[in-house]
Amino acid sequence: MASACSVKSAETAADSVDLVWSDGHHSQFHFIWLRDNCPCPNCLHPQTKERTFDVMTIAADQPDLNALDLQKEQLVISWKDGHVSEFRTDWLRLNCYSKSAREARREKPILWAATVKTALPEIEYEAVMKNDSGLLAWLDLLVDYGFVLVRNTPTVQGEVTRVANRIAYLRETNFGRDFDVISKPNPNNVAYTALKLESHSDLPNWELPPGTQFLHCLEFDAEGGESTLVDGFGAARQLEKEDPAAYEILAKLHIPFRFHDQDWDVQWSAPTIARDQLGDLQEIRFHAALTAPLDLDFDDVLPFYRAYRVFTEIIRRSDNILALKLQPGDLLVFNNRRALHGRAAFNPESGPRHLQGCYVDNDSVLSKRRTLRGKT
Amino acid sequence: MASACSVKSAETAADSVDLVWSDGHHSQFHFIWLRDNCPCPNCLHPQTKERTFDVMTIAADQPDLNALDLQKEQLVISWKDGHVSEFRTDWLRLNCYSKSAREARREKPILWAATVKTALPEIEYEAVMKNDSGLLAWLDLLVDYGFVLVRNTPTVQGEVTRVANRIAYLRETNFGRDFDVISKPNPNNVAYTALKLESHSDLPNWELPPGTQFLHCLEFDAEGGESTLVDGFGAARQLEKEDPAAYEILAKLHIPFRFHDQDWDVQWSAPTIARDQLGDLQEIRFHAALTAPLDLDFDDVLPFYRAYRVFTEIIRRSDNILALKLQPGDLLVFNNRRALHGRAAFNPESGPRHLQGCYVDNDSVLSKRRTLRGKT
Repeated sequence: MASACSVKSAETAADSVDLVWSDGHHSQFHFIWLRDNCPCPNCLHPQTKERTFDVMTIAADQPDLNALDLQKEQLVISWKDGHVSEFRTDWLRLNCYSKSAREARREKPILWAATVKTALPEIEYEAVMKNDSGLLAWLDLLVDYGFVLVRNTPTVQGEVTRVANRIAYLRETNFGRDFDVISKPNPNNVAYTALKLESHSDLPNWELPPGTQFLHCLEFDAEGGESTLVDGFGAARQLEKEDPAAYEILAKLHIPFRFHDQDWDVQWSAPTIARDQLGDLQEIRFHAALTAPLDLDFDDVLPFYRAYRVFTEIIRRSDNILALKLQPGDLLVFNNRRALHGRAAFNPESGPRHLQGCYVDNDSVLSKRRTLRGKT
Repeated sequence: MASACSVKSAETAADSVDLVWSDGHHSQFHFIWLRDNCPCPNCLHPQTKERTFDVMTIAADQPDLNALDLQKEQLVISWKDGHVSEFRTDWLRLNCYSKSAREARREKPILWAATVKTALPEIEYEAVMKNDSGLLAWLDLLVDYGFVLVRNTPTVQGEVTRVANRIAYLRETNFGRDFDVISKPNPNNVAYTALKLESHSDLPNWELPPGTQFLHCLEFDAEGGESTLVDGFGAARQLEKEDPAAYEILAKLHIPFRFHDQDWDVQWSAPTIARDQLGDLQEIRFHAALTAPLDLDFDDVLPFYRAYRVFTEIIRRSDNILALKLQPGDLLVFNNRRALHGRAAFNPESGPRHLQGCYVDNDSVLSKRRTLRGKT
């Protein structure tokens, strides 16, 4: 839509070029911003698309503009030093940094509660594996909802990796490149027991916890063991509404997490609720089992516990918890930094329960989605 | 030292247990903090060391304490509900969250300038590979200085991976698990040309840029091509001193980075200078070639360019730039999120220049250092 727009007028102001578009939108581009983003082969490496222009070669903060020439699909700027920059107008529109353009580029997650069960974001394995449009449909659901159920995945060892590799290479962790979730005799992690797991995010003790988690059900004939998911972003928005002070505390205080065994001692501190500079939710880090002894200012300890209890109570509300008994062939894919996951206890004597899992970075998911959008 | 300390007195205050130690140090531990960190096998999983205690099982914000019993090496707390918690006093001292204890735990990087050339942090390959104490010595230098030169590394393909694996698995990226730095005919990255590279950090377009970078010189017989390093933390501290307003701007504004080729389109925005909650420097993200068109509030664009130019000028000061002509067998290991690296242009016709590289996450470096400190 934006690319179909044309520029109606282009004028120079004190330190910017001001454009009015055929749909009424206004854009202002600073002279220095334009000079710095000149797309000519001397300024932008033609193969690598990397900037080779050095902004330090401009004497002052602001380059001097000589002439502006608005053509049908491009804006040509002649600089006083003789350099000429030709900008495609559709590129300018895409990169407009007006308030409304920036606002329109924000991701808008679809928040959900337990009722999402009646209309699960789901897709067939065949669609994901066969072509680019199926792959893109899957990633769109994943980005919007923070989880997707992939149905009818062959119950073959290692299949989870092949699905994940549709996106990118795996994100390795101290648990390896992939992992089996079964109850083990000497577990180094409660996931490898048959105990109930409260909703949590995995590996909060890493600076960047793995983004997208894959859990592929190969066998499940045990009593109990339902998988649970809670929309951490939804829960955070509820907290913000019900108890804004608690929300601010959890967005501010850095909470230490730690995992340690024979070979590893991985520690990181981060807020429970992370927001980006526009206030959009970026991440929920929530895992009581791996929370290290709080290392906060004395005066922050009781306020943290109070806020944490309010948030935990919201996360545990039954109408926030989606419970799914995975069937062999179900592959649950979710954003580990948004959708908190857990499971009911199960009776390991009653039958087998075997999931295979792996991770891929969210950067890789978003990258693949961008390249597919360019193609499809 | 701390563990040799004993507790002189233990008293209960309104909401905490207050300890005075034999060296005069004071600690205060909130009741709820103590209850939440009870190390008994019902509260802390004996194998996994993960918390199984659920703080939500305490009715109020604060658990009721019944009695306090200070013994020689432990503090025993009986709670009103009958539960008993036994804390080792050395564990309490290690986890004390008084202002002075927290202050003492902060990392204190050793800042450096070009003059570090006369006393390079360096170590022999043999020491790194042979035993835990050599490995720890290497990691200590790396954490303190942000770089180390490993000398006399066999000039064998893949040796760089074996050295990196002393720490952990490799951090894979869109460039693969390891990479060769040679000039290529159709580069997707300016590193693969013979051009000069200004000081930069690699992969700032990923949410978490790779932490520790390894560059192993296998062959080098070309004119030019000196490797350069600048202490980004040192440069940031200089900026803070010389132009505090510019420092604050670079610590606040989120700058977009992007790498895109046929297969990838990886984008992330983050501040140029990242600090943790205590104001300690965490990361410098600095790479003009991969800086995407700024997506800032209109009013932030000129202040950013001004601040960026001041910082760039500091980074380019010759007395900040360590220049090293790597010799075959030299393996340069550095914190990619602190030490900005670059290289002089070289003449690819004059002879070969072949480096092999890979990355490991900083979390893995710190984890290995912690486990080795426990052992050695």
